[in-house]
Amino acid sequence: MSDATVPGRAMRRQVTVRFPGEQVRTTMTPRLADLSEEELLAVVVPLMRQNRRYAGELLGPGDDAAVVATSGAVVATTDTMLRGQDWRDDWSSGADVGHKLVAQNLADLAAMGAVGTGLLVTLAADPQTELAWVRDLAQGIGAACARWAVPVVGGDVCGAASGVVVVGATALGDLAGGAPVLRSGARAGDLLALAGGLGRSDAGLQLLAAGLSQRHPEAVAWHRRPEPPLAAGVDARRAGATSMIDISDGLLRDAHRVARASGVRLDLDRAALDVHAAYLRPALSDGDAWRAVLAGGEEHSLLASYPPEVALPTGWQVVGAVFEGDGVTVDGEPVAAAGWDHFRP
Amino acid sequence: MSDATVPGRAMRRQVTVRFPGEQVRTTMTPRLADLSEEELLAVVVPLMRQNRRYAGELLGPGDDAAVVATSGAVVATTDTMLRGQDWRDDWSSGADVGHKLVAQNLADLAAMGAVGTGLLVTLAADPQTELAWVRDLAQGIGAACARWAVPVVGGDVCGAASGVVVVGATALGDLAGGAPVLRSGARAGDLLALAGGLGRSDAGLQLLAAGLSQRHPEAVAWHRRPEPPLAAGVDARRAGATSMIDISDGLLRDAHRVARASGVRLDLDRAALDVHAAYLRPALSDGDAWRAVLAGGEEHSLLASYPPEVALPTGWQVVGAVFEGDGVTVDGEPVAAAGWDHFRP
Repeated sequence: MSDATVPGRAMRRQVTVRFPGEQVRTTMTPRLADLSEEELLAVVVPLMRQNRRYAGELLGPGDDAAVVATSGAVVATTDTMLRGQDWRDDWSSGADVGHKLVAQNLADLAAMGAVGTGLLVTLAADPQTELAWVRDLAQGIGAACARWAVPVVGGDVCGAASGVVVVGATALGDLAGGAPVLRSGARAGDLLALAGGLGRSDAGLQLLAAGLSQRHPEAVAWHRRPEPPLAAGVDARRAGATSMIDISDGLLRDAHRVARASGVRLDLDRAALDVHAAYLRPALSDGDAWRAVLAGGEEHSLLASYPPEVALPTGWQVVGAVFEGDGVTVDGEPVAAAGWDHFRP
Repeated sequence: MSDATVPGRAMRRQVTVRFPGEQVRTTMTPRLADLSEEELLAVVVPLMRQNRRYAGELLGPGDDAAVVATSGAVVATTDTMLRGQDWRDDWSSGADVGHKLVAQNLADLAAMGAVGTGLLVTLAADPQTELAWVRDLAQGIGAACARWAVPVVGGDVCGAASGVVVVGATALGDLAGGAPVLRSGARAGDLLALAGGLGRSDAGLQLLAAGLSQRHPEAVAWHRRPEPPLAAGVDARRAGATSMIDISDGLLRDAHRVARASGVRLDLDRAALDVHAAYLRPALSDGDAWRAVLAGGEEHSLLASYPPEVALPTGWQVVGAVFEGDGVTVDGEPVAAAGWDHFRP
């Protein structure tokens, strides 16, 4: 959508002022407060939907609620991001935030073995937020949704206090009649397998914080726009994975959650994880690389357990095994459940 | 759940200080920052769920996503509330906010003719938020969910900037195999009918702002804890309502939305609405009462159109009729679509 087609006062209110001897310039940056709610929706909904139709979407945005087809059950998850807490505007663009919002919600669905069927998006923002940022956010959401074939079916917009921007999403998913893969199904004797990498998002964040992002552009890109292995989640369910989790708060912390829910011990194989640390070592010290691999959040890879006789689907690598007991070990040695805590970062 | 059973550091960190000659006193108020995320969830999830089981809930909180049974489609809506924008702590308790959050989301489902089957709850809060307030919020959510038989199946908690508290919910609903009632189905010749009252929430807010809440305690109570006519929405769908909307942004504004979506004119009958203004006149001037009736938000009553031959279900009152044309009229006279706008209150 070009600026020329943006409806509403935002455009009409732009003021052109000519000072003596100066170039013409536009003095007013369009902000949310310049648009009514309906004008804002007329801008962002098309950006989020990219003019696509989806078979399972029975009713999209514009009514009191959306309606999405299911195969007898709906899988649902929600995640929220706050400016200053979950992103910094100098490190991530609006489109990066939009991409990440979609990615992390769909990763939670994938961790159940589900595919996304619809997304509801919430924006609570300071009315002084620049419209350009919100358009960028919507474009990032729209591009990610188009890529993963999930329609934005609804949402909510509201004003917030000065400086506050909160974006949230609820993702709806479907299991095609299958059973969800829970955290609680790991059994002693199972293999432990990983789809995706480890520590890249955390390494990218460390490098951004140190002003050294050129040391590992791929890690920085992953921090900004993670690409969760969504198909691997569905494949795992079909192949008979006994447990699965999205690695959002760090490998050790999330592995502990599986261990506790399943009443087992998960043992990680350091040699199998070393490829992930090695990938980061050109940019980080060995210690920092291992900390990122073991405790880095927002990676959105998948950890699953499989019966030992199962042939692992494409993209899954064995990284350990399941034993009787409790907690998480690396090569049999206990480790703490270091990772991300939302109220005590 | 009594305080004695609250886990975690919040309780352990309470400090008792005895000054010479003084009473024993507890100096530290537990705040979110005193609990880990898991400790917080151990407090609030039981309060929100009240130890109930629900048939349609296939998987509740604690995994990467929830799973809820459906009859072939899921209805989904989301609403967000912010401290200072959507409530004031001196006017509404945490439990009031929790009740309202559930009520307004379920009202959106009811406006499609759907019943709630699950709720996802988001809390983004300043870590210095008092735990007592969050417990109160969770109790309000839990009581409303128990009353309307909708389980909290999941959610998300995260930290926010100083002073910021955002609560959000996504409600999932079911149509029992029926078709949703849209905003777009009103036809010339239909009757226009209302389930519930008008203007009470806005009147209550006006009275709270004026320090005159004793003038109409029922209106103030409705502002704090609206009770949407949820069953009337399902009844309307079964009876063959052609269009329906939740009155959340004011009667005129929401009626305009139906008129525009349906390509018709809605005419409201002033005499039929007068009972609602009369209910407020003991506390408000006639003009303020009518403004509340016509433009007051957050009422969460339902407006629907019915073919003229339909026998209206219990609780529905005729308040007008549908004509060819566009816009909204009162006794045939045009009126503006005054009401609530989220970015320009």
